[in-house]
Amino acid sequence: MNEMTEPFRAEQRVLYGDTDSMGVAYYANYLRWFEIGRTELFRRVGSTYRRLEEQGCFLPVYEAYCRYHNPARYDDIIRIETTFSFAGKARLRFDYVLLHKDNGAVLAEGYTVHVCTDKDGKVLKPPVELKQLLKEMEEMARSEGSKK
Amino acid sequence: MNEMTEPFRAEQRVLYGDTDSMGVAYYANYLRWFEIGRTELFRRVGSTYRRLEEQGCFLPVYEAYCRYHNPARYDDIIRIETTFSFAGKARLRFDYVLLHKDNGAVLAEGYTVHVCTDKDGKVLKPPVELKQLLKEMEEMARSEGSKK
Amino acid sequence: MNEMTEPFRAEQRVLYGDTDSMGVAYYANYLRWFEIGRTELFRRVGSTYRRLEEQGCFLPVYEAYCRYHNPARYDDIIRIETTFSFAGKARLRFDYVLLHKDNGAVLAEGYTVHVCTDKDGKVLKPPVELKQLLKEMEEMARSEGSKK
Amino acid sequence: MNEMTEPFRAEQRVLYGDTDSMGVAYYANYLRWFEIGRTELFRRVGSTYRRLEEQGCFLPVYEAYCRYHNPARYDDIIRIETTFSFAGKARLRFDYVLLHKDNGAVLAEGYTVHVCTDKDGKVLKPPVELKQLLKEMEEMARSEGSKK
Repeated sequence: MNEMTEPFRAEQRVLYGDTDSMGVAYYANYLRWFEIGRTELFRRVGSTYRRLEEQGCFLPVYEAYCRYHNPARYDDIIRIETTFSFAGKARLRFDYVLLHKDNGAVLAEGYTVHVCTDKDGKVLKPPVELKQLLKEMEEMARSEGSKK
Repeated sequence: MNEMTEPFRAEQRVLYGDTDSMGVAYYANYLRWFEIGRTELFRRVGSTYRRLEEQGCFLPVYEAYCRYHNPARYDDIIRIETTFSFAGKARLRFDYVLLHKDNGAVLAEGYTVHVCTDKDGKVLKPPVELKQLLKEMEEMARSEGSKK
Repeated sequence: MNEMTEPFRAEQRVLYGDTDSMGVAYYANYLRWFEIGRTELFRRVGSTYRRLEEQGCFLPVYEAYCRYHNPARYDDIIRIETTFSFAGKARLRFDYVLLHKDNGAVLAEGYTVHVCTDKDGKVLKPPVELKQLLKEMEEMARSEGSKK
Repeated sequence: MNEMTEPFRAEQRVLYGDTDSMGVAYYANYLRWFEIGRTELFRRVGSTYRRLEEQGCFLPVYEAYCRYHNPARYDDIIRIETTFSFAGKARLRFDYVLLHKDNGAVLAEGYTVHVCTDKDGKVLKPPVELKQLLKEMEEMARSEGSKK
């Protein structure tokens, strides 16, 4: 199976600058929090998206979706849970759940699909490094699952 | 039929601050351009979203989706085409196509679904004003279509 | 004299995404509007900042200042008036006044100072093209002033 | 003396969405990091800006200044050091130094000046709570200084 069963967690506090005049976080900013989720997922297994780029592998966004459940408010801490899976040969999919850290309420759910490309936007098969990376993510997820 | 057949157009230039280090517009900013699209749609029929809010009707976002086709770059002018339809009793749906103004390339397509609520987030049926507004939009669209 | 006496004007509407939960535009977004001001100033004399970059001349920001007079609110149209001057051999200074289009109230005043650099951040004297450009700006300003 | 001698520290990682096509953090985003600095300063002494607002005390920005020394890049961790002082009867001033966490390079320095107002923007003297809060900040700073 390709999908991770255990999500990784990151946290981010809602800035004043993230809110809008409805008094809640502006809807586009959830996509920034999605970015934090997938970035920290890479870091967790000892790599970074920055290093991937240095090796010539870019992951531009192909699709993004968000379903807004409950508003995030100024100064709330958002917990970002991220899982990933392959979505075809050259595509990666990340799934996100955003939770209110203090009361556990689901704030939003969504996903992004990314294509592997070189610097000029030409589609590539994911490089061996990326496949290896994803394997490590799965193993880490599995070993975390078995600890329970 | 509930859906508009003729989209409304708005334009926005890509700022330096909209781009990211991949040299293209950051993916979250497309949702800002979607906002411009639906805002100008309201204005076009002689109303504004601001006035709706002053009358106690809010339209928080329930869902957002974007499919990225071609990158938008710094200083490009983006043409935003917006259509709308009802998506259930208390829900409005806006569909967007973002085009590169100069060469006509489709940059992105997407939609947002909104709920009608009062100031405290309680779901409301769309007020008569909103229904009237949407009727005017459809009529304007129809008359534009017939001019062709 | 190096300073322009006639400002150039650009306009931008305040998005929902520009506001914060105080119900007014978030303070960092004024710097985005400053960017619009200087960008349109270049375009006005038949050049663009994009073209400057293509010729290897970059203008990273060295200093930015803003004094906030009156809040900008959702859906307001902001008029951005921009003037420029040299601020030393390799430095350009832009001064901005942001006005509420409908009632003329001054919303903010500020400036940015920029350094001329090559692609790698090495400081350069402004290229001949830039000096020529600035001369054109001054002439345009002068001829506009004399029309009054 | 009114000024704090020991700064408070907060950290924030640079997102892809914070960068621009020059490959570095966009200049307006430094003002977001300033916000993080002053927010965490309040929290450090057991209060929050959110609570201040709930008590009817708002601190809109009156002035903001930033001097950019070195570019912040994608995935860098920024250390935000914040000090504060009174700047007149109803004004607060925060001073910020942004450092590159790993190599200690100064990225930017700046300040913001804020006015105390009620919900409707009417200028107020800082409430007793705020003065008490600032006293606690000074004491904490002093005791930290004496530990050295």
